[in-house]
Amino acid sequence: MAPGELRQDPLSGRWAAITTGRAARPAAFLREEGPARGPLGCPFCPGNEHMTPPEVWAGRDGGAADSPGWRVRVVPNKFPAFAGPAGVPPEAGDGPGGGLYRAGPGGGLYRATPTAGAHEVIIHNPDHVATLAELGEPEAARVTAAWRLRLAARRTDDLGAAVVIVNQGRLSGASLEHPHSQVFATVVRPALVQAELERLGRDDCAACAVLNKERGGERVVADAAGLVTLCPWASASPLEALILPDQHLPRLDDPPGPGDLALARALGSLLRRLDTAAGARASYNLVLHAAPPGTDDFHWHLHLLPRLTTYGGFELATGIVINVVDPDQAAAALRSG
Amino acid sequence: MAPGELRQDPLSGRWAAITTGRAARPAAFLREEGPARGPLGCPFCPGNEHMTPPEVWAGRDGGAADSPGWRVRVVPNKFPAFAGPAGVPPEAGDGPGGGLYRAGPGGGLYRATPTAGAHEVIIHNPDHVATLAELGEPEAARVTAAWRLRLAARRTDDLGAAVVIVNQGRLSGASLEHPHSQVFATVVRPALVQAELERLGRDDCAACAVLNKERGGERVVADAAGLVTLCPWASASPLEALILPDQHLPRLDDPPGPGDLALARALGSLLRRLDTAAGARASYNLVLHAAPPGTDDFHWHLHLLPRLTTYGGFELATGIVINVVDPDQAAAALRSG
Repeated sequence: MAPGELRQDPLSGRWAAITTGRAARPAAFLREEGPARGPLGCPFCPGNEHMTPPEVWAGRDGGAADSPGWRVRVVPNKFPAFAGPAGVPPEAGDGPGGGLYRAGPGGGLYRATPTAGAHEVIIHNPDHVATLAELGEPEAARVTAAWRLRLAARRTDDLGAAVVIVNQGRLSGASLEHPHSQVFATVVRPALVQAELERLGRDDCAACAVLNKERGGERVVADAAGLVTLCPWASASPLEALILPDQHLPRLDDPPGPGDLALARALGSLLRRLDTAAGARASYNLVLHAAPPGTDDFHWHLHLLPRLTTYGGFELATGIVINVVDPDQAAAALRSG
Repeated sequence: MAPGELRQDPLSGRWAAITTGRAARPAAFLREEGPARGPLGCPFCPGNEHMTPPEVWAGRDGGAADSPGWRVRVVPNKFPAFAGPAGVPPEAGDGPGGGLYRAGPGGGLYRATPTAGAHEVIIHNPDHVATLAELGEPEAARVTAAWRLRLAARRTDDLGAAVVIVNQGRLSGASLEHPHSQVFATVVRPALVQAELERLGRDDCAACAVLNKERGGERVVADAAGLVTLCPWASASPLEALILPDQHLPRLDDPPGPGDLALARALGSLLRRLDTAAGARASYNLVLHAAPPGTDDFHWHLHLLPRLTTYGGFELATGIVINVVDPDQAAAALRSG
């Protein structure tokens, strides 16, 4: 069952997911203000496997499902924002994924569709505190492998989008301290995913064009093993960065990709540079965009979005983000980090 | 001179304002993490008028310009995000305001336009700490009058948008403690402003339709003196609310409007309800949308956007906001606040 509704605001056209199953009463959102502290009672720590829904996949040295012995573990989110089959189809649009990104005519004043899809958690490691910057490379590569495998598991589902995200740190929106990723699969296709899909097709790929323009230049942070790390020219956050393969590859497992270990290595290096440039343990979000289910032409990439400033009323009034750090300076700071 | 550039990200189409004049070096953003504390050295307190650029308007009991005696004071932002004439016209689009909201063909991989426009600060009151919830009604009405007058001053300028916003509280993006509003005038028209303009014309006004549907119902918080306060059906934030006139009025000064005092009264009441429902001194943003300069058909409204939760990677990956509080429950909580 879908746990809520995607609703379109009639004044602005913006969509919001009202997922009240995640908070039983209005004051419950206050619980989300800070992450829990310490491993005691942590649902993601070894020995507490019964506190999560049954695992859907794990990398294990041994042990039965839902018992200790795992190195990386994937479970459904206990309070999913998206869940269940599409049920009633989303209101008609004229694009793939049910048309969320392109409102069809009709539907009256209030347009809504169920929050159908899936919402999984990838528990990075048994270690309660080690971040992706702190894990050893083999351990971090288990995480990037889980990203690849969980996206591959959705490839043929009737979905508009599947994204992997990480919320790391107090200012990132994280509600649990134990480092983890989340996989969101949505029946509808969000406008932002559609916008990237339209811009990253092989014949006129903006990511390939950016690589062509940027490689060897001042906004490049690293370039090794088939992966380029750069500060985007139109960065919306201070010290924002992008990791992308130097070839046009739709998904993480499309050959000849850089592989799990190379991605883990590039990401770990970047995150350590961020901590040096911004101060220890900066909060950040990671966003992994790959070819949406049912599509074949894309250029996968990983956004690093540091949370060093807070958006204000201007951003909410206009949708335009103000960034006070020049990306050229950001790249210089990260290179020397 | 425009202090920066609006840049369009080639991968997603999103626009960011790179305004490096606001921070001289990459680490400077760290200053923005928390507001200054206390009136000592506050550039907005009486006696410190020399710390701001010369005032452009003030409501005064007496005294010369840029000296004490004001009750509300408007100055240019010392570190403007938007400033100066358009200069080189924005790249061609096919809509009003230079087409930011609708990318024209050509322009190459990297499309940019100057951050031309204006950026003013409305200092609410000589009192360093009193918020809009705490000011007396005559004092708060001086603030709403300043909103009205500063938007009117831009009415015939060649601008795509003029918005008034308030950042209140530690989590709102405010960088100075002394309560103030900001007026942003941009030569380009942001997509979100254009989206509202297209939906709020007289012949098929979504705000009029919402009023028609909602008045007397469960999501209404207050309805008095020509102003309706309600929790939007598609609220993106817990306890989000909207104040709008019960008639189709493009601007705050279009007759027969509710007037400065009625708006101050409705807003003050709402903000006190928010503090009661969410806990004392909740952080929030206010966004005032009225008819953009050069346009005549709109339905003005004021968004109250509480900052009780933090957006995370999902919001950044998709542009869809997750809200864990049902707007019906939000309205009930605000009514009883």
